[in-house]
Amino acid sequence: MKAARFYGPRDIRIVDDVPVPELSPGQVLVDVEWCGICGSDLHEYLETPHPLTGESLPVTMGHEFCGRVSKTSAGCTLRPGQAVMVDPRMYCKSCDRCGASQTNICRQWAFKGLHGHGGGFSEAVAVDENMCHALPGSVPLSDAALIEPLVVGRHALKSSGMARFDDLSVLVIGGGPVGLAVIFNLRAQGAERIYVSEPTLQRQKQTADFAAEVFNPLHDKVGNKCRQLTDGKGVDLVFDCAGIGPGLKDGMDALGSGGTYVNVAGWETPFVVPMEHFMPKELILRVAMSYTDADFREVVQDYVNGKFEGVERMITSRIVLDDVVQKGFEELVTNKDDHVKIMVTPKRQNIHG
Amino acid sequence: MKAARFYGPRDIRIVDDVPVPELSPGQVLVDVEWCGICGSDLHEYLETPHPLTGESLPVTMGHEFCGRVSKTSAGCTLRPGQAVMVDPRMYCKSCDRCGASQTNICRQWAFKGLHGHGGGFSEAVAVDENMCHALPGSVPLSDAALIEPLVVGRHALKSSGMARFDDLSVLVIGGGPVGLAVIFNLRAQGAERIYVSEPTLQRQKQTADFAAEVFNPLHDKVGNKCRQLTDGKGVDLVFDCAGIGPGLKDGMDALGSGGTYVNVAGWETPFVVPMEHFMPKELILRVAMSYTDADFREVVQDYVNGKFEGVERMITSRIVLDDVVQKGFEELVTNKDDHVKIMVTPKRQNIHG
Repeated sequence: MKAARFYGPRDIRIVDDVPVPELSPGQVLVDVEWCGICGSDLHEYLETPHPLTGESLPVTMGHEFCGRVSKTSAGCTLRPGQAVMVDPRMYCKSCDRCGASQTNICRQWAFKGLHGHGGGFSEAVAVDENMCHALPGSVPLSDAALIEPLVVGRHALKSSGMARFDDLSVLVIGGGPVGLAVIFNLRAQGAERIYVSEPTLQRQKQTADFAAEVFNPLHDKVGNKCRQLTDGKGVDLVFDCAGIGPGLKDGMDALGSGGTYVNVAGWETPFVVPMEHFMPKELILRVAMSYTDADFREVVQDYVNGKFEGVERMITSRIVLDDVVQKGFEELVTNKDDHVKIMVTPKRQNIHG
Repeated sequence: MKAARFYGPRDIRIVDDVPVPELSPGQVLVDVEWCGICGSDLHEYLETPHPLTGESLPVTMGHEFCGRVSKTSAGCTLRPGQAVMVDPRMYCKSCDRCGASQTNICRQWAFKGLHGHGGGFSEAVAVDENMCHALPGSVPLSDAALIEPLVVGRHALKSSGMARFDDLSVLVIGGGPVGLAVIFNLRAQGAERIYVSEPTLQRQKQTADFAAEVFNPLHDKVGNKCRQLTDGKGVDLVFDCAGIGPGLKDGMDALGSGGTYVNVAGWETPFVVPMEHFMPKELILRVAMSYTDADFREVVQDYVNGKFEGVERMITSRIVLDDVVQKGFEELVTNKDDHVKIMVTPKRQNIHG
């Protein structure tokens, strides 16, 4: 079958000769309908065999995918034809953290599409049945792969330690895919005072309809803007979906006393805490890593119940698998800010009818 | 009257001509018995007039002091002769944080002994009656000034967000005065698995009787030691009472997943979060600033009830006010690790009988 495989940095190849995966007991074969491109696809990092999957390069890419069950193994209850959203994580089930339901920080965590065992940029993937979330016929598969980034956002909300969000003022640093996923989750939980700090015009436009205010940190004093909107107090909560020093400073400046800063971003530069804000306001710094089984279940349920109104607007392009390098990865490197989510399908008829 | 006054860095003078303070309504005059030297006395920083006190240099030093009421003003209920421990803080009572009982982070916070309105390295201080905590006759004033650093430790425990400590494993980074204050509070709350990381031999000895284990971070892998003592999990809680980069790395390494790191220290170097520990374990970073009215009340009560057994061993020297520069501040600069707390009295007979 066809698959996009990662051979090394900037060496992604579409190959035709990947065997259709064999099913282990308890697995189903998922024929992929759509798979989103994630920022982490752009800098895959697997170089040695992964301890959990045992695989080395090349690996099939893509971890944000939905599809339909085409084949089942002994003991499965899902039936062929069933639409499913796939939780792409793999975890060891035997470490202390898995034992404590903290599968998001399993000591050997891996993702399909990043660390082996297939991925969504292919025609079919073998998936443990319990990692498949059945979707009702009312949910179009054309958008459902957005569930995966939405689960990332949900876990970020959980990581804040807050019980509810409808009475909070929140600043989201960075209006890219992760920022939007956080915003849609905040809206799903009733938050209204959502502010966004985003320097690019395209992303300001992409987030404007979903936030109460969008600031440009290159021109606005984000902390001052937030204080103006909160009777001088500062916001209750910040989600860092950017991972850059100036955003960190702005975010900690914008927080009111006792406020919580949640880092959802990866950092390529040192994370230097601005103590001049952190100490005198007794702020709290937390971090969100991946997501848990419960996060995934909850988001699927909310998605099916229509709690993420407008989320399909995150999709800025649809392409076929053959084009994933040029119109997918290269496009995201070249015109990053024009895009939120590029959806890829191995089925030509999904685009061309 | 006599007072030790701060004129500028390394310019502390004992002067004889400071007027005995006048009492405002609601204030009592406290004749100082004992006042401890705090690390912050060594680098006072008031250079411009403080917005709350209106005072500039020189200021009388000393904020860890107890004494006896010698004079009262209209409406006071304390009587002359009453032994009191003084809460040396001043706060504006009008900002949003004071309104929310977060007087520890008042927007104009000040301390007697650091920012004006007298201090404990003098013969007498005018204090708002409600900042005086009456002590029963059973409590010797010779040690009671230790209550102030103990309150710092208490607030650190509160800042952890933990409800109880008796079932937690805790690492304290730094066995100096603040570290010991945290340790005595942990013991008062029933904690038994208290580990200390401290590089100097003197401080290892000073803390050994009050901790389950003391590590030398120059020789021991602190994270490994902590994991060995916690079935491989890592500790639940870290208090940073050192404020140096290697301690921060060790502490975050030593924490188990979901663990909390509380910074109690001042930092002179950038606070660079070791993301390789922080992210994959989803740690929580918090900070402790000063203390609140409630913290002070609780510690006084625990102190009176004998909950800080052995705390008097924190006192490593007793000197008279005349000697505070040479045998106090200079001694702490020169032989820092030999001392935990130096107690100073303006009353020669307190030492010489």
